[in-house]
Amino acid sequence: MEIGRVEISTWLKSLQDSICSALEKADGLGRFEEENWTREEGGGGRTRIMKEGGVIEKGGVLFSAVEGEAPDFLFKEKQHSAADQQGEEKKPRFFATGVSIVIHPNNPFVPIIHMNIRYFEMDGGTRWLGGGIDLTPHYIIEEDAKFFHQSLKKVCDKHHADYYPKFKNWADDYFYIPHRKETRGIGGIFFDRLNTDASMNFEQNLNFWKEVGEAFASIYTELIARNKHQIFTEKNKQWQFLRRGRYVEFNLVYDKGTKFGLETNGRVESILMSLPKLASWEYDFKTEADSEEEKTLGLLKKGLTWV
Amino acid sequence: MEIGRVEISTWLKSLQDSICSALEKADGLGRFEEENWTREEGGGGRTRIMKEGGVIEKGGVLFSAVEGEAPDFLFKEKQHSAADQQGEEKKPRFFATGVSIVIHPNNPFVPIIHMNIRYFEMDGGTRWLGGGIDLTPHYIIEEDAKFFHQSLKKVCDKHHADYYPKFKNWADDYFYIPHRKETRGIGGIFFDRLNTDASMNFEQNLNFWKEVGEAFASIYTELIARNKHQIFTEKNKQWQFLRRGRYVEFNLVYDKGTKFGLETNGRVESILMSLPKLASWEYDFKTEADSEEEKTLGLLKKGLTWV
Repeated sequence: MEIGRVEISTWLKSLQDSICSALEKADGLGRFEEENWTREEGGGGRTRIMKEGGVIEKGGVLFSAVEGEAPDFLFKEKQHSAADQQGEEKKPRFFATGVSIVIHPNNPFVPIIHMNIRYFEMDGGTRWLGGGIDLTPHYIIEEDAKFFHQSLKKVCDKHHADYYPKFKNWADDYFYIPHRKETRGIGGIFFDRLNTDASMNFEQNLNFWKEVGEAFASIYTELIARNKHQIFTEKNKQWQFLRRGRYVEFNLVYDKGTKFGLETNGRVESILMSLPKLASWEYDFKTEADSEEEKTLGLLKKGLTWV
Repeated sequence: MEIGRVEISTWLKSLQDSICSALEKADGLGRFEEENWTREEGGGGRTRIMKEGGVIEKGGVLFSAVEGEAPDFLFKEKQHSAADQQGEEKKPRFFATGVSIVIHPNNPFVPIIHMNIRYFEMDGGTRWLGGGIDLTPHYIIEEDAKFFHQSLKKVCDKHHADYYPKFKNWADDYFYIPHRKETRGIGGIFFDRLNTDASMNFEQNLNFWKEVGEAFASIYTELIARNKHQIFTEKNKQWQFLRRGRYVEFNLVYDKGTKFGLETNGRVESILMSLPKLASWEYDFKTEADSEEEKTLGLLKKGLTWV
């Protein structure tokens, strides 16, 4: 029997469970609180939020599975794909399910992390997978950056030699803040509409996609373990708040998921759970010469090679 | 001799001077620092920022006068006006000058205020005035809200009986956050493309526009004087940070000036001076029943009558 939306959303829920357990264990103190919600147009979600944990100041691990009439945004993009021109006026229906994670830690030496994996179906048999993991360190620690990219490369290489270089560049391009001329962080991997070329069949792509999701907990708990005991100063916190300000700028100005959610009357509290507890903006802030802050700024560029 | 761009930008600079003086006096401690900048495509500005004052935590009073090839955005909107269809491919040149102000105070009982007045010219003789003043109290104090609207109404009524009701509604519509179903604050007045109907001549409209600019300092210094000594708690500060979060959401997601500036490679530090020193987001924050916070939320609606 072919794998469909039921199996995939069931698997995503179990992934949400296992990630929440792993994060609670790594945090040591915080617990996720769960909220179930439904959507008038069809479907709903299971939002899990941790506040004021030992390591995690604010974090969300969100599952959702929604369906309805495909919004123009998706429908029009679909028309661009050569595969299935139909010329009909009637809007097709869609189904989308995924897990989204954003974690903002207390300690400025523990990085912010983001993961999203999503499965999408549209009437007529079109379906694809998308997702990725990217890291936004307040301070870029080279060993950690290498470990992070190496871990992602390992998952990619197991499935297709092109995936890591292709999806790494995609993340560099996606998580970019043009008005700041900075990347949001050190990138990672980002992919969308997987299954729309013929290089691998759906099941092969699904296996890759699942392993991305499964890699998250071990990667992030390792980064927590490495840095959670680092001593930090008031200056480090101020810098963290400024970097979070950039995170807010990216998410509110450029992030497609956020824009799409806000424009289509999505569940605001779930969409904006990505925003930090505290963020700061200072007019014309300048880093000190040869400081750690300056070093980090110098590494917020596209196209750096970490492995 | 007809009044043109030179007289208007000179007047705006003197307005910037007098507003900065009045704000420094009201603040008692802080001083504005000035930065002059130029723009490759033509023109520049004089940015004045106050940080960590006695009353003002972060505030900017910005003058700019820029010119260049009109961006599509403006050109296309221009084509919609009946006045001057030209059918030419060549992009017209524009000149724009204005003063923009955003003040974020320390004390949560002192409101955030925003003012902008701008003058715009395009090749071929088209020119118009725009602007407004709006108030974003963290806590809405009815007496202050009435004073604020009454002061604006007085300026409007002196020039045209329609102006206050029309521009008050315009502000309600403009300063609205659809995804929150909240207004940003209690509005004020907002107008654009003044001089494109025949009810008053340019000089009459210019006089109205100048008086809006001149009204700012006395209105805001009065609101500072009324509230700067109010005692506040940690809970009041947290609420202030959450309200500032909404301010950030409005400015980054909806504000046309911000979007336009970021998309057209404007001076980022000047555009984003509107963002507060510290802002906060909490997942699914709920106000307590019958609290001051709940009362304020209940008043963040379009169409309330304050005078």
